[in-house]
Amino acid sequence: MVGGGQLARMTCQAAIPLGVRFRVLADSPADSAAQVCAATTVGDYRSLADLQDFAAGCDAVTFDHEHVPAGHLQALERASVPLHPGPAALHHAQDKLAMRRHLTGLGVPCPRFAPAPGLPEIIDFKEMSRGWPVVLKATRGGYDGKGVWVCETPGQAAEVLGYGIDLMVEEHVPFEAELAVLAVRSPFGQGAVYPVVQTVQRDGICREVLAPAPGLAPSLAREAEALALRMAGELGVTGLLAVELFLADGRLLVNELAMRPHNCGHWTIEGARTSQFEQHLRAVLDLPLGVTAMAAPHAVMANVLGGSDGDMLGRLHHVLAADPALRVHLYGKAMRPGRKIGHVTALGPDLAGLRRRAQAGAAYLRWGEAAAEAEPADIEPVPAVSPAGKLGEGTRT
Amino acid sequence: MVGGGQLARMTCQAAIPLGVRFRVLADSPADSAAQVCAATTVGDYRSLADLQDFAAGCDAVTFDHEHVPAGHLQALERASVPLHPGPAALHHAQDKLAMRRHLTGLGVPCPRFAPAPGLPEIIDFKEMSRGWPVVLKATRGGYDGKGVWVCETPGQAAEVLGYGIDLMVEEHVPFEAELAVLAVRSPFGQGAVYPVVQTVQRDGICREVLAPAPGLAPSLAREAEALALRMAGELGVTGLLAVELFLADGRLLVNELAMRPHNCGHWTIEGARTSQFEQHLRAVLDLPLGVTAMAAPHAVMANVLGGSDGDMLGRLHHVLAADPALRVHLYGKAMRPGRKIGHVTALGPDLAGLRRRAQAGAAYLRWGEAAAEAEPADIEPVPAVSPAGKLGEGTRT
Repeated sequence: MVGGGQLARMTCQAAIPLGVRFRVLADSPADSAAQVCAATTVGDYRSLADLQDFAAGCDAVTFDHEHVPAGHLQALERASVPLHPGPAALHHAQDKLAMRRHLTGLGVPCPRFAPAPGLPEIIDFKEMSRGWPVVLKATRGGYDGKGVWVCETPGQAAEVLGYGIDLMVEEHVPFEAELAVLAVRSPFGQGAVYPVVQTVQRDGICREVLAPAPGLAPSLAREAEALALRMAGELGVTGLLAVELFLADGRLLVNELAMRPHNCGHWTIEGARTSQFEQHLRAVLDLPLGVTAMAAPHAVMANVLGGSDGDMLGRLHHVLAADPALRVHLYGKAMRPGRKIGHVTALGPDLAGLRRRAQAGAAYLRWGEAAAEAEPADIEPVPAVSPAGKLGEGTRT
Repeated sequence: MVGGGQLARMTCQAAIPLGVRFRVLADSPADSAAQVCAATTVGDYRSLADLQDFAAGCDAVTFDHEHVPAGHLQALERASVPLHPGPAALHHAQDKLAMRRHLTGLGVPCPRFAPAPGLPEIIDFKEMSRGWPVVLKATRGGYDGKGVWVCETPGQAAEVLGYGIDLMVEEHVPFEAELAVLAVRSPFGQGAVYPVVQTVQRDGICREVLAPAPGLAPSLAREAEALALRMAGELGVTGLLAVELFLADGRLLVNELAMRPHNCGHWTIEGARTSQFEQHLRAVLDLPLGVTAMAAPHAVMANVLGGSDGDMLGRLHHVLAADPALRVHLYGKAMRPGRKIGHVTALGPDLAGLRRRAQAGAAYLRWGEAAAEAEPADIEPVPAVSPAGKLGEGTRT
């Protein structure tokens, strides 16, 4: 796996029972995955030579992020390196404008979009769509809300244009909820899909994932699953495909996609019979896929963000004592405010109780100033998946 | 963890989400745990210098086996190395005669036993107990049926005496079933216990573990749990204590014990909310313990033993395709007939179906000649936990 972040760390964990000899190309021995992987290569994913050296002898090469240069991927493919996903598929996770164009061509519902080389094009786009605000996105390199700007005025758009990066513009979708669906496809062509989840973001960062999406109409869930499987096939994905969706006016719109393990699937480690990390390994190695059924009626995952207090052991001690059934995952990452440093998962029949437990655990593990968030009174309501009168089939559970 | 076998490998896996920097002292870089651990030291557990070097800087030192010389353990303890379990506790897992004497002194029910320095003592013992056969055991160093001999005649006993090792003699208990119970205790004194399981052995090697023990009377389950927790406290165990039990004439008798993760608890990886491996880490680091509740109504674990066919990838492919819900754990161990090279776990509501699936998966993964065992017709009945008329409270489930 190219990249040494927490996704590689958790994939490393999943490789152990499969007997897979897992290697990581990391920037540094201190990287999250490098700390736990028995076969770390320190190197630069922007260097073709480093990638070539790393790939030698691998049965499959896959990715923890989308940032490997496309030209390098093509060179590796020409040299018969078994890349999963391959460059043709990965192009659509690397370039948001290419993704939008391709998906629209396939008839996949997306927000309206246009290239945004300058302010006139943004003004034109605004006229044809919902008006202000509009969303500007870096076509490459964004993550966790970085590279996405909601612009209320031409002045704000001009400021973003001033950054000098390639941009596209999208309509600002007034969604009822954000959903995500995780599909997986093997080179052989076997596909599988996990239950649709609801994601709760704040400041562009995923805070909470609820599995399955509470109150989602079964017809919409089936539609989302079919969409993800179809996209995986049409795009030629090998490995995981995470599709982030808006639910707006009772319709599904594709927001973002990723071709790797994804934050929306961390709940699967304990909450599904096969974790997304094992599933990704099985897919990229062309092994038969595992069942995606849930192992509990509900699973709630909450991300742990960095705060400012370095006493993680003390906080861990407290959280394990307060909630001995909470599943805690720490990534071994250095503290930086707002950075994802871990996640917690709660499993069981009572969704509201699971949300309280997951949010309390995550807030307490957040180092420093954010401990007050642990108060149950601070739990936010889930954005409505099925507002009254809109989705007849939806029932809140 | 001292020792690089599969128990250390699976503990290494459990250390990742806890953010624990896990180190292994292995005999070789090819050891099961050394293959996956990011911080392996190659050294000799029989060398005090190697142990001292390895322990430097560790917050806790624990064990994958019982074979570290007692004198070394005492020397490390005198040097304030944080050993868990400590030498005083571990003595009772290392020396079976000392264990029997201590447990008998505590009023813990055990088979009748005696030291066996020579044939006269064995003959005397036979007169006082159930007669032939008797069981001779090496007081130290046995595992997986090694170091245990069922002797039908004085001639067979004389042959074992001829091996020149320290022996004890025990009555041969005509048990109805073999059970096991796994307790855990932290230095702080917190204790927890997993549901009692039934183990099925063949040729002295555990083949199958059924969790919870089917049909076991609740009163006996509570008695076994209380016994294990009491023993953990009385022996001063820190970490896991596995207690293997005979159920004979409706009574529980302690057969063997171990102070480490144990084969009888491999089902907990997916079948319990906290795996035995994570629990051991939490205990030896004096972190609060996790819940031991089951994550499914039943879990069945079957060991995969080595056969003679080296094409493990082909076999794995077949088993994953045939049973996409089966959990497969491979240990990365070189093939040797009869050696434990992995295990599989099946989870769900239908015990008979789970046993068929687990045995079929394990038999197919057994390299070579044993594939015929995969036939469901070969499934053996579970030895009766509650034979008719003996255990009134027992109901088969």
